[in-house]
Amino acid sequence: MTDPEQKPTSPRRRPGGRSARIRAAVMEATMQMLKDRGIEGLNVAEIAARVGIPESTIYRRWKSREGLVVETVLARMNDTIPLPDTGSFRSDLHALLQQSASFLESPDGLLLTRSMFSTMNRTDSEARQLYWQTRFSHLGTLVQRAIERNEVRPDTDPGAFITAMTGALYVRMLVLEAPLDAAFLDQLEQMFLQGVLKQDKKIDA
Amino acid sequence: MTDPEQKPTSPRRRPGGRSARIRAAVMEATMQMLKDRGIEGLNVAEIAARVGIPESTIYRRWKSREGLVVETVLARMNDTIPLPDTGSFRSDLHALLQQSASFLESPDGLLLTRSMFSTMNRTDSEARQLYWQTRFSHLGTLVQRAIERNEVRPDTDPGAFITAMTGALYVRMLVLEAPLDAAFLDQLEQMFLQGVLKQDKKIDA
Repeated sequence: MTDPEQKPTSPRRRPGGRSARIRAAVMEATMQMLKDRGIEGLNVAEIAARVGIPESTIYRRWKSREGLVVETVLARMNDTIPLPDTGSFRSDLHALLQQSASFLESPDGLLLTRSMFSTMNRTDSEARQLYWQTRFSHLGTLVQRAIERNEVRPDTDPGAFITAMTGALYVRMLVLEAPLDAAFLDQLEQMFLQGVLKQDKKIDA
Repeated sequence: MTDPEQKPTSPRRRPGGRSARIRAAVMEATMQMLKDRGIEGLNVAEIAARVGIPESTIYRRWKSREGLVVETVLARMNDTIPLPDTGSFRSDLHALLQQSASFLESPDGLLLTRSMFSTMNRTDSEARQLYWQTRFSHLGTLVQRAIERNEVRPDTDPGAFITAMTGALYVRMLVLEAPLDAAFLDQLEQMFLQGVLKQDKKIDA
């Protein structure tokens, strides 16, 4: 993507034709500008110019500057944090926590996450909400599968689980500004899998 | 505080003398201005004028505008969400979740939490970090007590527990913009106490 040898005019794979190509080019330009300048410096007119399309095309497709940022960030997350499917919930959760932590602590991940949170105060939040819901429900299939395999209690809400897991990582990283180190991830794994009560204090079937 | 009958010149209790009185007056004015205008409209010079002190006194005491906001918000949280101490971890956690949810969903709580998160992108984060650490370690004593009472596994890190609990509430409310309803709080309670694994899948002492 940042290979200086790559000619901008070189032919590309065309998985979805012209409109998919434009979408990819816009998101690539957005990603690059986010990295260079942060969310405050993101300029939709300039992105349109770089890609060689009218600005109105971007607003038609993404509705708003925020919609564009959200989709770009989440697409990158989906690419970088694939859904583990090892056949065991314990190792799926372990892999997901490891991958999420590595991504969130990478320069890209930190930048993207801060960008997402800095839009928190805006009223124009539909795009953000929609994409987080999509992302969380995607991650939730990991819990759903474990319920179907009879590993996880059937009354577990996958959405609540993913919310708590993601919340723990974000608050640790962004609010406390503490590292997502192995000791912390082990604590989460243990807590979510076994709970914190001692065995003889549990009411369980 | 907002009682129109109250004369501004009426004598007040003086728990810590003049400096404590000034501190309280500044935080009250800050709280009021945050409610009226949000964090963007907060003006330190105006707060100083309302209280009748030089602006420099505020900067000496709170270092920065952000420091002032953070201390004001967290002091309000500590007043509004007292630490439960029922003698049982299960009911302590239940009470803490209920109180936290009620506060976070109140107009004050929502405003204050959004204000805190909207400062996320600033580099001047020492004050914020310090106060969150203080807040979390205060809440963590609830877990610590349960470990001492032999209810909770001794290898549980109170900080990780509070981080996950708080993270779940914030992400649900601020990122997903979904309600902190009884069903969600029940899920958290169950998850954190018992874990999500089915009994026969647990490795536990």
